[in-house]
Amino acid sequence: MQPMMTLEELRTLLPQEFPQAMGPDSGLTVAEIGQGSVVMKLEAAERHLRPGGTVSGPTLFMLADVSAYVAILAHIGPVVLAVTTNMSINFLIKPPLGTLVAKASLLKLGKRLAVVEVAIAGEHDGTTVCHAVATYSIPPR
Amino acid sequence: MQPMMTLEELRTLLPQEFPQAMGPDSGLTVAEIGQGSVVMKLEAAERHLRPGGTVSGPTLFMLADVSAYVAILAHIGPVVLAVTTNMSINFLIKPPLGTLVAKASLLKLGKRLAVVEVAIAGEHDGTTVCHAVATYSIPPR
Amino acid sequence: MQPMMTLEELRTLLPQEFPQAMGPDSGLTVAEIGQGSVVMKLEAAERHLRPGGTVSGPTLFMLADVSAYVAILAHIGPVVLAVTTNMSINFLIKPPLGTLVAKASLLKLGKRLAVVEVAIAGEHDGTTVCHAVATYSIPPR
Amino acid sequence: MQPMMTLEELRTLLPQEFPQAMGPDSGLTVAEIGQGSVVMKLEAAERHLRPGGTVSGPTLFMLADVSAYVAILAHIGPVVLAVTTNMSINFLIKPPLGTLVAKASLLKLGKRLAVVEVAIAGEHDGTTVCHAVATYSIPPR
Repeated sequence: MQPMMTLEELRTLLPQEFPQAMGPDSGLTVAEIGQGSVVMKLEAAERHLRPGGTVSGPTLFMLADVSAYVAILAHIGPVVLAVTTNMSINFLIKPPLGTLVAKASLLKLGKRLAVVEVAIAGEHDGTTVCHAVATYSIPPR
Repeated sequence: MQPMMTLEELRTLLPQEFPQAMGPDSGLTVAEIGQGSVVMKLEAAERHLRPGGTVSGPTLFMLADVSAYVAILAHIGPVVLAVTTNMSINFLIKPPLGTLVAKASLLKLGKRLAVVEVAIAGEHDGTTVCHAVATYSIPPR
Repeated sequence: MQPMMTLEELRTLLPQEFPQAMGPDSGLTVAEIGQGSVVMKLEAAERHLRPGGTVSGPTLFMLADVSAYVAILAHIGPVVLAVTTNMSINFLIKPPLGTLVAKASLLKLGKRLAVVEVAIAGEHDGTTVCHAVATYSIPPR
Repeated sequence: MQPMMTLEELRTLLPQEFPQAMGPDSGLTVAEIGQGSVVMKLEAAERHLRPGGTVSGPTLFMLADVSAYVAILAHIGPVVLAVTTNMSINFLIKPPLGTLVAKASLLKLGKRLAVVEVAIAGEHDGTTVCHAVATYSIPPR
């Protein structure tokens, strides 16, 4: 699965199209694009944390969802808007403090449905702390 | 499954124990307790919305998670802290504007695991817009 | 959601169209059709059991899948073939011996996707032993 | 995550302990053990197939469940019996004819819960046809 967008194209497009979710204050950046995958980073801000300083469940959900979405966008091009229909998310261990890294890998990229696996770990720690598989509905092009 | 806490006890406890998640600014209130279930309401604020004014995915996740958590708390008492281990969440249709109502029903309340189903709808509209099933690990008491 | 097929029509169609899965030896029968739901029964045979005489995991999966499929068929008519794309299934307690009853309720019946919730219990015991939510892709008609 | 059993030990133990599920007629064999993972093969027999000759949904569920179970057993030793509590399974494309290969990888192996990811592909075809993530409850030792 060859990407259809470059890292630079994604980094330009995303803050324009999704200023709230992917703007400079979002803490989110696209770190890498690969064949069938993207890597995103989240520099957690105060609003992402729960008491104790670790990232909250809804923030992990958001990071998984955005990463999966960007993986699809990178591989079908900036045309269509995929819609999340299902996510099954497992919280494995408490996430470490600091930046989180999410790797989103396309399991399927069909005409109507995409299925994406996401593994989230601390930046300096390979251990997966959260794992998700999400399904997206792709509107007719 | 008989609840072990009254509505009043929950309404007192939750903002004390979880001031960020359940405080006066959270938009969340416990509306009802039943046998094996609770009903919660979310009055969505600006930060809960996506462009267009509907509630965002992470907010629906948060509402499902909090409602399921409160259902467990209401039925085992205010002692132990359950931890979300898995949630499978389905986004069925775009949520309506305005207050959302989440009904969380215990499917299982075991010694070590609880499984809770959550259906979310608009306050004046019975249609389920989001449905989730979540598993919680209950620490040894 | 009004059904588009009667109980009798379903009982005639299913064994013809799916002789292996729904024939006289399958142990499966459609017990009821409601608005947005069906009830199916499984009289478990030797091959459905695990040691100890309770129904096996793959059999519970099969019962959930068939029930959800029949719920869709009953409400869109006998034309199109829905394909299971995802199932999240929770095994709550060991199922009782004897006949199992599965109630499948449509959470969503869209043009392209259907989402169905299934609760399985023993025939003479209301307790849900297994709960599943499944997504089906509906081919263009 | 170091395995605690050898391939030979597993191949001796499994048919003894689970003669129905893992006996010579089951079509299942353990092909490899790795750090935190096992690979299993299923030589599909008539009873595993749906019309058309491809493996049925319940068979894919069974293969995912058995592979995940064996991955846990191989890493905690042949003492305790893990119980499946949840599986989220995605059916990506129709499986090819012939032998299927399942790779089960431990995402978490805690004291009370294990979470295992399983990818199933055709033996001569790297494409994942089915992907599952399952949670197991591990009884106190």
